[in-house]
Amino acid sequence: MSQLLRVMNFNVSQDGVAAGEHQSLENPFGLDGAERLFSWAGATASWPMRTEPGGSRGLDDYFTRDYSHGIGAEIMGRNKFGPQRGPWQDHDWQGWWGDEPPFRTPVFVMTHHERPSITLSDTTFHFVGGDPLAVLERAREAARGMDVRLGGGVTTVREFLDADLVDTLHVAVAPVEFGTGLRLWDSSDELLDRFHREVVPSASGVVHHLFWRR
Amino acid sequence: MSQLLRVMNFNVSQDGVAAGEHQSLENPFGLDGAERLFSWAGATASWPMRTEPGGSRGLDDYFTRDYSHGIGAEIMGRNKFGPQRGPWQDHDWQGWWGDEPPFRTPVFVMTHHERPSITLSDTTFHFVGGDPLAVLERAREAARGMDVRLGGGVTTVREFLDADLVDTLHVAVAPVEFGTGLRLWDSSDELLDRFHREVVPSASGVVHHLFWRR
Repeated sequence: MSQLLRVMNFNVSQDGVAAGEHQSLENPFGLDGAERLFSWAGATASWPMRTEPGGSRGLDDYFTRDYSHGIGAEIMGRNKFGPQRGPWQDHDWQGWWGDEPPFRTPVFVMTHHERPSITLSDTTFHFVGGDPLAVLERAREAARGMDVRLGGGVTTVREFLDADLVDTLHVAVAPVEFGTGLRLWDSSDELLDRFHREVVPSASGVVHHLFWRR
Repeated sequence: MSQLLRVMNFNVSQDGVAAGEHQSLENPFGLDGAERLFSWAGATASWPMRTEPGGSRGLDDYFTRDYSHGIGAEIMGRNKFGPQRGPWQDHDWQGWWGDEPPFRTPVFVMTHHERPSITLSDTTFHFVGGDPLAVLERAREAARGMDVRLGGGVTTVREFLDADLVDTLHVAVAPVEFGTGLRLWDSSDELLDRFHREVVPSASGVVHHLFWRR
């Protein structure tokens, strides 16, 4: 089996918005009410950030349970690591993900600005330049035969879609509209030229859109 | 987390039939057209018996992909191992599953008749007596902290349901009726006193019924 590049548990609103224009340390998504995008995931038993027992084991749980299964590395945009822009000002601040980041693999953070790697528990963040294909090649090598997760944010997902490097996508469309913000798509139909699609409504109110290459 | 006992990718007809009354070496399910029960699984990319690349990566694939994820042992009834009844006549015949059984863990085959364990590739079959709880305790120990799959057949699933030992069930209801045979249920409503349920139709025509303990 080849190593797939997979977008997993990526959350957008009904109008395709995944983040606001203005992220900050206090508001990582730059959206008021961003939690409405991902509350479905937090309600499941297998949510990677879950600290208490409990949670649902219905359809939504299959998606959160699958999050780390067969994944050997993640690629993320710089904005998913933190809100800083331009040259790194503060090496002491080690990202939004705390002492126990949920990735538990090598993570390749795309940035034009070098910085030493950071290891936090089972996760090591590497800060890498280069185009999407070059970064994917590094991530594949680090993944030791397993798949690579494309973690986002939305700008990064679009960049890899434009380069035709994405093999599968799971996008959860939440029952909320934001009106403005950074969009993954105007309509998920945009991907039908290159991908099969299934649309699966969940009891939680989100609608799972599943894509895989034609 | 505790170790769950999970029924996974268990296939029944619209009238609840999972197998015929009369299994044989040539007809393991004892049903004409049994392949209509599980053809949805064979069409997915992650079907454990798949030998060729390809297959769908939509909703159904989440279920076949989950088959071995976090599973450390399987329990099965004797009829899932082979069609022999009564004392073992032929130790040379090593079950229906070939040289590369898809389980890849210890498997506990419930039988009143002792027989030495058999190792085939990554799978070891143990032949064990005792009631469901005693067998579950052995399987949990062998699973080393991971979950235990309850593999079937239908009589065995019912036996563990009657003993209230099952934590989650995924039952795929196929668009076929058999009229007669061994039934898992008359209606999946029978489980609602003890389980949450979600019913998720798939593009393939099967309807996934997901249950987890209340």
